[in-house]
Amino acid sequence: AEILSSQYGINLFLAGLLLTFAWAVHAVGISKSHLLSYLITLMLVQLLWMLWYLCRSCTQRRLIRDKDTHAGARWLKCGITLFAVITLILDSFKIGYYVDFSNCLSPTEGIFPVTHAAHTILQVYFLWCHAKDIIQSFKTLERFGVIHSVFTNLLLWTNGVLTESKHQLNEHKERLITLGFGNITIVLDDHAPQCNCTTTTLCSIFSQGIYYLYPFNIEYHILASTMLYVLWKNIGRKVEHHQQYKTPFKFHGITVGMIFGLIVLTSTIAIVVVYLIQIGRSKIKSELALTMFYLHAIFVLVLMCTAGVIALLIYRLDDRSLDNSKNPARKLDAELLVGTAAGSWLLSWGSILAIICAQAHPKYTWYNLPYSILVIIEKYIQNLFIIESIHREQEKVNDDIKTLRIVTVSQGSTLTLTPSYKEIYNGHAAQDAGELPCLFRGSICARERVVSSGDNEGTSQGDGSGIHFASEFSLCSRSSVADNKRRILKNIAAFLFLCNLSLWIPPAFGCRPEYDNGLEEIVFGFEPWIIVVNLAMPFSIFYRMHSAASLFEVNCKT
Amino acid sequence: AEILSSQYGINLFLAGLLLTFAWAVHAVGISKSHLLSYLITLMLVQLLWMLWYLCRSCTQRRLIRDKDTHAGARWLKCGITLFAVITLILDSFKIGYYVDFSNCLSPTEGIFPVTHAAHTILQVYFLWCHAKDIIQSFKTLERFGVIHSVFTNLLLWTNGVLTESKHQLNEHKERLITLGFGNITIVLDDHAPQCNCTTTTLCSIFSQGIYYLYPFNIEYHILASTMLYVLWKNIGRKVEHHQQYKTPFKFHGITVGMIFGLIVLTSTIAIVVVYLIQIGRSKIKSELALTMFYLHAIFVLVLMCTAGVIALLIYRLDDRSLDNSKNPARKLDAELLVGTAAGSWLLSWGSILAIICAQAHPKYTWYNLPYSILVIIEKYIQNLFIIESIHREQEKVNDDIKTLRIVTVSQGSTLTLTPSYKEIYNGHAAQDAGELPCLFRGSICARERVVSSGDNEGTSQGDGSGIHFASEFSLCSRSSVADNKRRILKNIAAFLFLCNLSLWIPPAFGCRPEYDNGLEEIVFGFEPWIIVVNLAMPFSIFYRMHSAASLFEVNCKT
Repeated sequence: AEILSSQYGINLFLAGLLLTFAWAVHAVGISKSHLLSYLITLMLVQLLWMLWYLCRSCTQRRLIRDKDTHAGARWLKCGITLFAVITLILDSFKIGYYVDFSNCLSPTEGIFPVTHAAHTILQVYFLWCHAKDIIQSFKTLERFGVIHSVFTNLLLWTNGVLTESKHQLNEHKERLITLGFGNITIVLDDHAPQCNCTTTTLCSIFSQGIYYLYPFNIEYHILASTMLYVLWKNIGRKVEHHQQYKTPFKFHGITVGMIFGLIVLTSTIAIVVVYLIQIGRSKIKSELALTMFYLHAIFVLVLMCTAGVIALLIYRLDDRSLDNSKNPARKLDAELLVGTAAGSWLLSWGSILAIICAQAHPKYTWYNLPYSILVIIEKYIQNLFIIESIHREQEKVNDDIKTLRIVTVSQGSTLTLTPSYKEIYNGHAAQDAGELPCLFRGSICARERVVSSGDNEGTSQGDGSGIHFASEFSLCSRSSVADNKRRILKNIAAFLFLCNLSLWIPPAFGCRPEYDNGLEEIVFGFEPWIIVVNLAMPFSIFYRMHSAASLFEVNCKT
Repeated sequence: AEILSSQYGINLFLAGLLLTFAWAVHAVGISKSHLLSYLITLMLVQLLWMLWYLCRSCTQRRLIRDKDTHAGARWLKCGITLFAVITLILDSFKIGYYVDFSNCLSPTEGIFPVTHAAHTILQVYFLWCHAKDIIQSFKTLERFGVIHSVFTNLLLWTNGVLTESKHQLNEHKERLITLGFGNITIVLDDHAPQCNCTTTTLCSIFSQGIYYLYPFNIEYHILASTMLYVLWKNIGRKVEHHQQYKTPFKFHGITVGMIFGLIVLTSTIAIVVVYLIQIGRSKIKSELALTMFYLHAIFVLVLMCTAGVIALLIYRLDDRSLDNSKNPARKLDAELLVGTAAGSWLLSWGSILAIICAQAHPKYTWYNLPYSILVIIEKYIQNLFIIESIHREQEKVNDDIKTLRIVTVSQGSTLTLTPSYKEIYNGHAAQDAGELPCLFRGSICARERVVSSGDNEGTSQGDGSGIHFASEFSLCSRSSVADNKRRILKNIAAFLFLCNLSLWIPPAFGCRPEYDNGLEEIVFGFEPWIIVVNLAMPFSIFYRMHSAASLFEVNCKT
């Protein structure tokens, strides 16, 4: 049944993909309204299925269902809700846009945002309530429903990506016109409707605003489809019940990472704004903007690489067994990281090749080489770090118990000695406690001390206190080292999280040095390079968002 | 380490892919010799690694190594050897071609086939000896070596596919010139070197021959890379030792399927020959050839669908638990089937869309619609059949033991009754044996009868004989039904195997109705459609070969 439904989903997706492709290449006889009708139909089918599922799960609430504790984490749900809200704003903009241009747009362009809004609301509700479900009944029907939802979201994602790419390409072409490259035959694509707007100011707000909201819409759909995919993989699965430790996100202890990360974030936003203003104005301004962008990116990437290497070294220092149990959510995470990184690796290799093979090298293009190499290395290291982090077992609690047991055992062995030195011991203990190099000891160390002191109150002996202190000493320093390591890792994860968020912004909002630096276009030719960029860029953008999400998880878990 | 090496492999592959792409789009400053040097380097690295591995495994032969019995089946090895031999012929042709044109070709074009030949020989030897290995030592280095080999083969595959596609495209363009479509700007691509040949007849043989041998070269590389991938997945795996039943391939019992399959095979070859002669001669001849091709394909596909549905119905009739244990070779098989089928589904959806949206419909294009729909359905059904087959447990032996036990239990319960009816019982047994409807009973049924009769010789009783007969009766008829089912399944698998081989031939040797029927080109435009076909076609071709291989396995196992 898994194969049955996945093949259905793939065919659904391929048909939609070809419709999208046909629209993109302006195929004869296929217009945007065909594509939109197809999407509307898919969304309606999904709506019906979700309603049926919600009704059925309401009536059968008494049935205790299995939950996959790894799937649908709370921060994922919060993220998707945030994106969904922005998507709803986008939909309302689109409806407004349609109303303004209603006399020259086909009705499907009005129906689409309405359906999409309804679809978004219900889907978010559905994911909030049922993302953790492990469905055990009506498996075949459920599989079809879920896979239908997965591929509907993927198609909506494709559609969003394509619209966004077209918009970026138009902007790039406009810049080329400004810079005087009139020799390329430039055709602006789907730029504006053929009729005038009824209220001009509103129109420009809507059409401008739509493109600033698209990146969020794109992220929303890809997130929804990954969550649904995990749901699909979980259908019919048998889970062993793991104890899940609630790991709420805490700010304290990661200030250093946060500060550095926020510096990067703000500087990136500043750079993006300057870049978008400067680029395409004139040749010199463009080159300056590019140089600035590259230098900033190189600096950030070097920092990220260093952080990643430090984190990996820390992991190498303490060998801990990895948790290799089956887990669809985690497996998907790892595969997505590597798979989507391939998109940006492709772009980077393209740049490297172009720089090596180009005949003319303007000065600013040389910055492209370290930038591209660093992008490759940074993703390589970061993937290793994230994947190792999410595969590490949460052994802290066990560790604590183990060390406590060692302490009690070492105490037990000294039980039979002279019982008169109790006061001396207690004095020693109080005195030595201040001198022990447990400057960084956390709550665990302190708690253990309390526990072991409590045990000792009635039973500890003077002769044993030497051994006891020794063991306690090593315990404290060990746990403080572990605590230090954990704090460093938490800081690194927080820093990388904010860096990835920062690096998501430039490509998502239209900083495309791959277009603007012009080198690759000369080497590969305009059309081929644009095809490559448009294919690889969505994955590259998604990579940043996905790795940010994973790093957030790492931060919570560590 | 798995992630570390896979990321290395992906980057290796992406760099090569971009070089290939750059060559394909005639990028400035990147020539074929750059690409070939890159490939030669990769092959040499792989050669060194394989030599090191072979040496090491020779010196450490005393170590008993685990073997994955599912990986590297013998027929797979035979298949790859066959393809490798043809690849060696191809290499020798290429060397001859280079010698003839040596004054105007770069030396890399001569070095490449020599390296490739050495690489092929050593790799086949390596796969024969070590395809089943489960490597447990030097894991990191081995992982890098194996993944390097995987992606080297994939790159060689890409290179082969691209050369083949260019050749097909050139032929198509030549046909268009003959048919008088001069309005499309037609540039023949990498068609012939710029200098004259030293010995003209040999040259034409070489350059013609190369293109007939390419399909085998392509299959060789993809097969090698799948086998190496399984080897890579197996590194460090812990296997439970399954008893592997040797299942040699037997011809007897599958005559019906073989006969039908051979009819399809011969007719397909005939059709391909006629098609290649007729197409592009004139408009009428082309249309006739297309009609003939479509009708034949529709007929074959309907037969295949029917066979597949029957097989699936048989599976539905007896519910048997599926074997869901972890197994990289099998998992890869299933994923490859669905993944590569997506390539041809994409093409089919393109055709369907084109037919629906086209303005003018010449008569022969209508045959394209059922053809495309049938291609989708046929692959859907066939994938279900193959994947279900390879996941079924080999329970026959267990089944037999179980039923035998039932028989002995039923005999045991009647042991205490009157012992004087022995002669009567034996008479009855001889008489009834002739009347039992076990007309189709196979060796199992007969063997069980012997065993149970032997048991009865000394102990069976007259009163129990009624019950005994009843159980034996149902046993025989049940096992004969199972035997019938198995025979039908074997025949279907054999038939589908030959059909898939047949359907591999037309696209591999240049029957491309997707080009020749012209409808899609009109709707999507010439360039976009050619891009789609060139991307999807290699997967479609590989699908046929891969499904044929899987069906062969199914046939052996059933």
